[in-house]
Amino acid sequence: MVNLLVTLNSTYIKPLKIMLKSLFINNKEVRFNIYLMHSRLNDDEIEDLNNYIQSHESLLHVIYIDDNCFANAPILLHYTKEMYYRLLAFKFLPQDMDRILYLDPDILVINPVNELYNIDINDYLYGAAYHDKTTIKEINKLRLYPYEIDAYYNSGVLLMNLDNQRKLIDEETIYQFVQENRTKLIMPDQDILNALYGKKIKALDEKLYNYDARYYRYYKIMSGGEWDMDQVINNTVILHFCGKKKPWHKNYSGVFHSLYKHYEKLAFKTI
Amino acid sequence: MVNLLVTLNSTYIKPLKIMLKSLFINNKEVRFNIYLMHSRLNDDEIEDLNNYIQSHESLLHVIYIDDNCFANAPILLHYTKEMYYRLLAFKFLPQDMDRILYLDPDILVINPVNELYNIDINDYLYGAAYHDKTTIKEINKLRLYPYEIDAYYNSGVLLMNLDNQRKLIDEETIYQFVQENRTKLIMPDQDILNALYGKKIKALDEKLYNYDARYYRYYKIMSGGEWDMDQVINNTVILHFCGKKKPWHKNYSGVFHSLYKHYEKLAFKTI
Repeated sequence: MVNLLVTLNSTYIKPLKIMLKSLFINNKEVRFNIYLMHSRLNDDEIEDLNNYIQSHESLLHVIYIDDNCFANAPILLHYTKEMYYRLLAFKFLPQDMDRILYLDPDILVINPVNELYNIDINDYLYGAAYHDKTTIKEINKLRLYPYEIDAYYNSGVLLMNLDNQRKLIDEETIYQFVQENRTKLIMPDQDILNALYGKKIKALDEKLYNYDARYYRYYKIMSGGEWDMDQVINNTVILHFCGKKKPWHKNYSGVFHSLYKHYEKLAFKTI
Repeated sequence: MVNLLVTLNSTYIKPLKIMLKSLFINNKEVRFNIYLMHSRLNDDEIEDLNNYIQSHESLLHVIYIDDNCFANAPILLHYTKEMYYRLLAFKFLPQDMDRILYLDPDILVINPVNELYNIDINDYLYGAAYHDKTTIKEINKLRLYPYEIDAYYNSGVLLMNLDNQRKLIDEETIYQFVQENRTKLIMPDQDILNALYGKKIKALDEKLYNYDARYYRYYKIMSGGEWDMDQVINNTVILHFCGKKKPWHKNYSGVFHSLYKHYEKLAFKTI
């Protein structure tokens, strides 16, 4: 069994199902324990998701977060408390669980996840990838100064060492950081992750485990042509549709648009 | 059972398998009688194809064309006698077969073919689609003058009425046409089809049954936005990678590149 964590509001149910479909199709021998943290889904939505996941021989576990859960958490303009879910998930997951893979819903899983899931992160809190475009890295370094940042990890794919998190992460530190840096934070959960825990993250290969779907040409050029479409389709595990333009929006265009729509069709076809 | 015709030399075995994979995946309840006309495949290649097709619960029928078959046929520079295969296939297919669908190998079949296969072509020789870009049509009209051409049909997808073909098509007429127009012919089989039999072709909707993968933007604009990626993925049956740049070549780029490589992976994965 592979443990999977997702956090969600109802506008993301559709992409979540597409992400899960791609995961199921490309991991036919694996069953998943899927933990869903949410505060706003209704019973019908939950039941629908439950049926969907069970029909693929995996299990849904719902973690409902009520208003008291993050009572002390500072709130930022434009952000809800959902920004804390993935960082503090270890508090709500079974206490004997040692490992879980968190995935954003704006993802396609196009190859088996077993190697990713089993990466050695014994000495870390997380496994994650940073997107190695120089400009991004430099901007974030400056922005989060004086916190030292070697890399700016993307929080959309997080392999979590829950044992270590229970020992080393506490919510008060996080709340305090947010309080003190509220004007600086742009992508709060990601900023927290990097500023507070960046040194305890094992760097994963982004081209395999968090491929930014916007940068096909960039990856191809930077790898001297090696990472062409063949390479991506056969080796990349996680294709991440980062940024504001999403492949389920009207008028999206991008190199992986047709592939995304293909999985979308599979996710919703009735036959 | 659906009858399918393909004609092939060995450089196209790989795309043929990809085309067939897409056909099988999207037509799970259908079994196919696949007729392969060839003159140059070796025994290993045939056996490999046979195993591949049988593993998908369909049947391969090999029609070997030896040098005597088209003994009287005029030959054009740069073209082999294979250009006659699809036009004269009716002579080599079982004489009680009334209908067959010819497909080029540079195709993905991304939805069920049953509606296409069952289109009424009682009063025609073929069902085919023309690519409705004005420039293409006008150029071909001029080029094939004095033969009258309303549309220039693409010969990559041909639904064949074999009964009518046996009555109305004869090879001497074709050979004579080629002889008389040898300097004019650019895409010989397609030119013959249009000049000699254009009036007896039932026009099919190209966006459904012969979607030119190069013209995504064109189709989208000309349809007032209706034919977006959603529409293609959910409704187009035949996606045709026309032109010199093919999606199995290095350095191809195109809107359906990722989708093609996805099917390519499925066609060749061993697990």
